[in-house]
Amino acid sequence: MTAGPLSGTRVVVFGVGAMGKIVTRLLVDKGARIVGAIGRSPSKVGRDLGDVAGLGKELGVIVEDDAGRVLARGADIAVVCVSSYLATMHRHFATCLEAGVNVVTIEEETVFPWTTAPEEAKSLDRLARENHVNLAASGAQDVFWLNLVATLLGASHRIDKVIGHCRWNVDDYGPEVAEHLFVGHSKEAFDGSVAASGWPEFVARQTLEALVARLGLSVKSISSDVAAVTLGEPIRCRSLKLDIPPGDMVGTVDRTFVSTQEGPEFAFTMEGRVYRDGETDSNHWQIKGEPDLELTCDMANYRFTTCSTLVNRIPDVVAAAPGLRSLDMLKPPSYRHH
Amino acid sequence: MTAGPLSGTRVVVFGVGAMGKIVTRLLVDKGARIVGAIGRSPSKVGRDLGDVAGLGKELGVIVEDDAGRVLARGADIAVVCVSSYLATMHRHFATCLEAGVNVVTIEEETVFPWTTAPEEAKSLDRLARENHVNLAASGAQDVFWLNLVATLLGASHRIDKVIGHCRWNVDDYGPEVAEHLFVGHSKEAFDGSVAASGWPEFVARQTLEALVARLGLSVKSISSDVAAVTLGEPIRCRSLKLDIPPGDMVGTVDRTFVSTQEGPEFAFTMEGRVYRDGETDSNHWQIKGEPDLELTCDMANYRFTTCSTLVNRIPDVVAAAPGLRSLDMLKPPSYRHH
Repeated sequence: MTAGPLSGTRVVVFGVGAMGKIVTRLLVDKGARIVGAIGRSPSKVGRDLGDVAGLGKELGVIVEDDAGRVLARGADIAVVCVSSYLATMHRHFATCLEAGVNVVTIEEETVFPWTTAPEEAKSLDRLARENHVNLAASGAQDVFWLNLVATLLGASHRIDKVIGHCRWNVDDYGPEVAEHLFVGHSKEAFDGSVAASGWPEFVARQTLEALVARLGLSVKSISSDVAAVTLGEPIRCRSLKLDIPPGDMVGTVDRTFVSTQEGPEFAFTMEGRVYRDGETDSNHWQIKGEPDLELTCDMANYRFTTCSTLVNRIPDVVAAAPGLRSLDMLKPPSYRHH
Repeated sequence: MTAGPLSGTRVVVFGVGAMGKIVTRLLVDKGARIVGAIGRSPSKVGRDLGDVAGLGKELGVIVEDDAGRVLARGADIAVVCVSSYLATMHRHFATCLEAGVNVVTIEEETVFPWTTAPEEAKSLDRLARENHVNLAASGAQDVFWLNLVATLLGASHRIDKVIGHCRWNVDDYGPEVAEHLFVGHSKEAFDGSVAASGWPEFVARQTLEALVARLGLSVKSISSDVAAVTLGEPIRCRSLKLDIPPGDMVGTVDRTFVSTQEGPEFAFTMEGRVYRDGETDSNHWQIKGEPDLELTCDMANYRFTTCSTLVNRIPDVVAAAPGLRSLDMLKPPSYRHH
């Protein structure tokens, strides 16, 4: 028998990549009843989830590639760790919702999808309501960029400007992410690509929009830019197995600016790059206003805390009202002791 | 006409000392309808509240000394800034509740009074329910020591130990507080007094108990100690107008330890002393567990943020269910834009 804060909760693990494997271990620790696992890779399908996740024990759950079939057996919630964009994930979420299964996901656009993907958001919201279940996104941003900041602002009499800065390690997320950020390429190649094809807005925008909504403010304008990050010294990119010479790209810095109808302004800078030895994931927020305030977390450990926050969110998501619940609609995540 | 997040809320300012004066200005900024003011000092009673609070304008509200009479005229909430202990404040809270007026207060024991003042807590809880109103305490601890920490722990998979440290400026709270902390006295005099008469547990204990309750854990044991703080150099205590020689007391350090039935341990150190030039109110929390986490706020500005958080809490307290609402029962405080 399992015991713990998730005992009795029937969970489907949807996605058994790097994040899905961590999530699986945390679910087991918390006593969740894992009733299904969905994967794509032929190297994983047909194997036991405990084996795939490296737990050193079998869980009696076989990784399958037919999501509809796994979900049709019934579950309280699917924990979906597959990709970062709603355009890609829309049909997977729909499959879960149509099966009457709640969804919590690390897919970042769903944090606040109403303006960047309004059609998908509305259709998923409708589908969730029709099936009496709900859909929410969580991850490290839920704690570090949204709820810690909103809570700190509970001590603010007047906000003039909110200035956030975070740094995350490209090497924590595999070669695809490093490639996406032009790591190892020249600044010129990156600038040319951005000029030609633009640059997708990332989780910073959605998180700032969720923060503004949580504060009861209304967006007046949003803008963003991106720049190449280079270093003056050579550095090794572990995920690409590549030595990067000085001056070539080690990552990017994304900046998002939001002005509000009511006056307060928001700026959030996300630096994603290859780390020097000893660097850690950081999170810093500065509030200009009355009074000035400041918050720093130097051990944000974004990869792990994305998984742990997602798992801690499960009871909130199971209990939430039907629909797509953007993060501004949920109370802060809670610790779940096991 | 006033506008703002508190427009339409009828507020009585109960206590017009240093904190009550700041609170009055913030209430005016937020558009509250101040319908009464209660004070004790003959130098304030009979004068306009705006004048007493140094606002440079009259508010049309006279400071009165008969609390029952002011409250009988009706109000949504009394903002009570008088004293730090429930034993002293019990009858004042009762006067408000009996008049059908909600209470939000900086009195620190009410943060979590169930174990240190169980009789008063139960009787006020009953009185509040009977009169369909409620009573809650707030202040800087609400944001910095309770809700920021609880929110950070939403990213924690397993807590082993939570270690907090904060520092506050004795000179921010007037001569009575400095005297209470033996500022300017010898360590021997302090140690003798503690050995003879003990030392009152302060807000650290109540805040830790509220945190443990919020996390869904159960207290196994609580202990605390206190020690004198001295410096190696002379320092000026502004509130006592006193030069303190090296080796004499500049404040105290209180430590509170909580162990839980479930395992996680908590330790919170509060250092209250005269500041050197350039020192600021600090707030630091370290989490040992999976993962290790850390949070720092170096501009906590406790005196001001106690007032601003209290005012931001007003809509929550007006809307709360009847009874004494200890801080573990309320969601985090929110920013209220004006």
